[in-house]
Order: sequence, then C-alpha cells, then structure tokens
Amino acid sequence: MTTPTTRARITEITGNVARERSDHLATEEPLEIRLTGAGGPQRRTVAITMRTPGHDFELAAGFLHGEGIAAPGAIRAIGYCTDEDVTPEARYNTVTVALDGPIPELPTLDRHFLTSSACGVCGSASLDALRDRCVPVPEGELSLSPEVLYGLPYRLREGQGVFGKTGGLHAAGLFTGEGEPLAVREDVGRHNAVDKLVGWASLNQRLPLRDHVLMVSGRASYEIMQKALAAGIAVVCAVSAPSSLAVEVAREFGMTLVGFLREERCNIYAGRERIKV
Amino acid sequence: MTTPTTRARITEITGNVARERSDHLATEEPLEIRLTGAGGPQRRTVAITMRTPGHDFELAAGFLHGEGIAAPGAIRAIGYCTDEDVTPEARYNTVTVALDGPIPELPTLDRHFLTSSACGVCGSASLDALRDRCVPVPEGELSLSPEVLYGLPYRLREGQGVFGKTGGLHAAGLFTGEGEPLAVREDVGRHNAVDKLVGWASLNQRLPLRDHVLMVSGRASYEIMQKALAAGIAVVCAVSAPSSLAVEVAREFGMTLVGFLREERCNIYAGRERIKV
Repeated sequence: MTTPTTRARITEITGNVARERSDHLATEEPLEIRLTGAGGPQRRTVAITMRTPGHDFELAAGFLHGEGIAAPGAIRAIGYCTDEDVTPEARYNTVTVALDGPIPELPTLDRHFLTSSACGVCGSASLDALRDRCVPVPEGELSLSPEVLYGLPYRLREGQGVFGKTGGLHAAGLFTGEGEPLAVREDVGRHNAVDKLVGWASLNQRLPLRDHVLMVSGRASYEIMQKALAAGIAVVCAVSAPSSLAVEVAREFGMTLVGFLREERCNIYAGRERIKV
Repeated sequence: MTTPTTRARITEITGNVARERSDHLATEEPLEIRLTGAGGPQRRTVAITMRTPGHDFELAAGFLHGEGIAAPGAIRAIGYCTDEDVTPEARYNTVTVALDGPIPELPTLDRHFLTSSACGVCGSASLDALRDRCVPVPEGELSLSPEVLYGLPYRLREGQGVFGKTGGLHAAGLFTGEGEPLAVREDVGRHNAVDKLVGWASLNQRLPLRDHVLMVSGRASYEIMQKALAAGIAVVCAVSAPSSLAVEVAREFGMTLVGFLREERCNIYAGRERIKV
C-alpha cells in the first residue's frame, strides 16, 4: 500500500554550496473510482484522479457527493480493488463504491472529456448548471468573530501532518462556528482535499453541513465553491485569493466567502452578515 | 469579451475594523475547445476547462499538443465561436481549432470522465502511458548556474501583470539558459498557464523547446511534468515542492527538476548534471 510520503535522495543548494541529503516528497498516485449498482453486473469507472494516498474511501464518497452521483445514504459499501489480475500496487489505487440502487445516469461524457469541472461555456451557464442540483445555503445561525477567523489558518496548519514533512501539500479543514476543528485533510490536489472532507462528513452522516466553516490552504475557485455548496457549507475561507466565479457562486447561493485570511486581516467577498464586525 | 480581471466591491477587515472598497479579482470562466477536421463536417468538443481569459488560442494549441492530439503544424486555423445561436458572452469562451487532417482518434472517454490527467491506475502505469507518446529529453547543452536559477522567480514575478492587481493567479514562464524570459503566462489554473506557454511555442514554430527552462509559480505535479516533457523542455523549476510522481517523470525522461526555488536556495530532484555547482 502506498504511503502519503515518499523518500528521495536530493541535492540541496544554498548559495553556491551543494549537499546531498534524503527528503520526503508528497506522494502522488492515481486513484480510479468505480461504481457498481445493485441488481446486476453493472460496473463503471467514473473518475481517475491524481491524489495523495490516504482517506481514499472518503475521497471517493466526497467526489460522488460533489458531482451529484451519490447522495448520502446511497452508498452500500466501499472497498479497494480485489481483482486477481490487478497488481498489488494498483489494488490500493482503485476504489469500488457499491450503490444501494442502480448506477444513475451520468452527465454526458463528451462535455467532460479531459476536464475536471462541471460547467457550461460561460460563467452564468456554470451557475445555471449548479442551480439545477443545489439549493442556496440557508441563512442559519453562524456568526463568526474576526478572532475566530484569524485562528483558522493556524489550526489548519496544526492538522497538516504531511505538509510538515514535505512542505508541499494542499489542505482543507472543517471547523465549527467557534473555530474548533472537526477534520483536516491533505492532498496534492486541493479539490481532493475538499472531497476527502465532504466524504468524511457523508460517511459519518453529517451532511448537509450547514453551520460549518471550510478553510482551504490555497485559493478559492469555482470548483471548491461548488463542492462546498453541494455539502451545504455556509462559510468558505481561503488563505489566498478567490476567483471571479467563486465570488459569483457565493453571492448567488447565500454563502460567505473570505479570502486572503492571513495574520490579523482578511477580505469578505460575499455573505458579510455572518461576520461580526 | 471577458477580461483577465473583474472588479468587485469587498469588505476588508484589519484587526476589528471593517471598510468597504473596490477590488480586482482574477477572472475565471470556462473555455470550450472544439476540433474540426478537414474534408467533412466533423466537429467535436475535446475539453471544457476553467481558465482566465487571455491567450485563449495559445491555451487551445498547447492543450492539444500536451495531450498528443495536434502536433505542431497540424493546426490550420484557430478562431472564436461564430455561431449565431451562441450568446455574445459565450462566443469568446469557445475556441474552434481547425486541423489540416481528420480529427484523430481520441483516448477512450470512459477513462477520462471528470478527470484531467492521462494516467493509469498506478504511478508506473502513468509513466508507461507517457512512454508511449513521449521520448526522453536529449542531454543537450543546457548548463545553469545557481545565480541564473535564483533570478528566475523575480523575472517570473515581473512578467505577472494580472497577479499584481489580484494577488491570485498562477504563472508559468519560459526562459533561456541565460535566464532571459521568452514568455510569461498567467491563469487561475496552473496547468492552463503551462498550456498557454507551450501553445505560444507551438504557434511560433518553436517546438520542441529542448534547451529551455520552465518556471512555475506553484508546485510541480505529474501533470505539469507531462506537459513540459511533451514540449521537450529540459529543465523545470518550481517555487514550491514537487510530488513523488513529478520526480519519477523527471528521472525517467532525463529532465532536470528544481523545487523550493526561493531566494538563494533550491533543491535538485533530478538531472543535477545541468546545474553548475
């Protein structure tokens, strides 16, 4: 089974001085997500994504939830590949999700070939596509103080075991309105880190998340917002900048979006009413 | 036509003080890449990717080159959509690439649904897939001093016009062995920034690039290395960490991979012979 980090010999150069040493790299390996349906020999590969091994079942469950393929409770079992003809190395890179019902009709393949986002050909078409399968986040009771916000990056960092070793991973954390961490996940792909969190919530019957805060280590894009919205998350915070479409999603669906959350400052792009200042 | 930046009203919070102001966001909009073949009414959508508008023709050409769909010289024309039934907003989000020959057979859709990387179900299968369509980078004559390396992040930053306004974009730059910038491209997606560079080289008859240096603002993943390799780039430098699979690609295909290139230090993960120290 592959591990989240991989050792490698490297050359470190400081100024004009080189020295050889051992280092830890964040592991990147493909994960194939397969679906099987009840009542028949149906089987289908729905995604192959490059990811950091670890929390693979959560990644699969979160991905399927975010894409609207499997609602909470629709999953009967999740397991690694047990095919005899698959090499041991590949076995832990294939996750099969058994659904309670038949495999649902999937979006047209043609429009997704070689891309990773469900979208139309303009920003508003992308919002329309979201509107078809997501409801706005309810107003809720979440009210965050700046102090709670300012603490989130530190708490996220505390939960990042692999980053500490490699310096090279994205992270996503789920927090309560008081800033208490519920789960932190890491991955070479920032969308995967969010999928792992949502999958954690899905497998623990916690969806929809409603009055929770998602904090991501990088930027906030359409894809991140789409996954948060599908999970019902009210507040998304990012260490870096949001994109224009991320802000549009937040404003359209009643979410709070905080960016450039570093030290004692941040920018609020949408849903300012949930921030107490 | 959409622009690379979008204005928005935001609330900036510093400590416990809030103030309203105007801000620039990096624009994120979908781009649909369509192919048409010669000698028939063939037309096919090969990708929809979220990108920052600008250098869209380069993005399309670079994407098609990286995926092995269109070799340099195989493109007859590139244009925005001119369909009457498409809204003006969407027209500039659809690029049609006219090939000289017929549309080539594309990889099986089933294995790519909702993913963005060509890959197998384990790291070595991913390398096998690359071996089928890429040759190792020749040894070449490139020999880089640490001083040239240390200058690259600054020169990349100088070429980032949109980052300066928004603080939220990935960048990729193409440099000579003396550290002279040839082109710098920005995008919300780091793979898109590299596609734009490779597309620039393709449309200017500069492929394969051989003795050139690619510098990226973020981390180096399998996907970035795959695109660099397909373009024949010998040296890839990243501000942040490489993944395990990025290092494997570099070692397997004779590339030099430099990571954590910041201030007066860096790590060499592969191809140390091209670094003069």
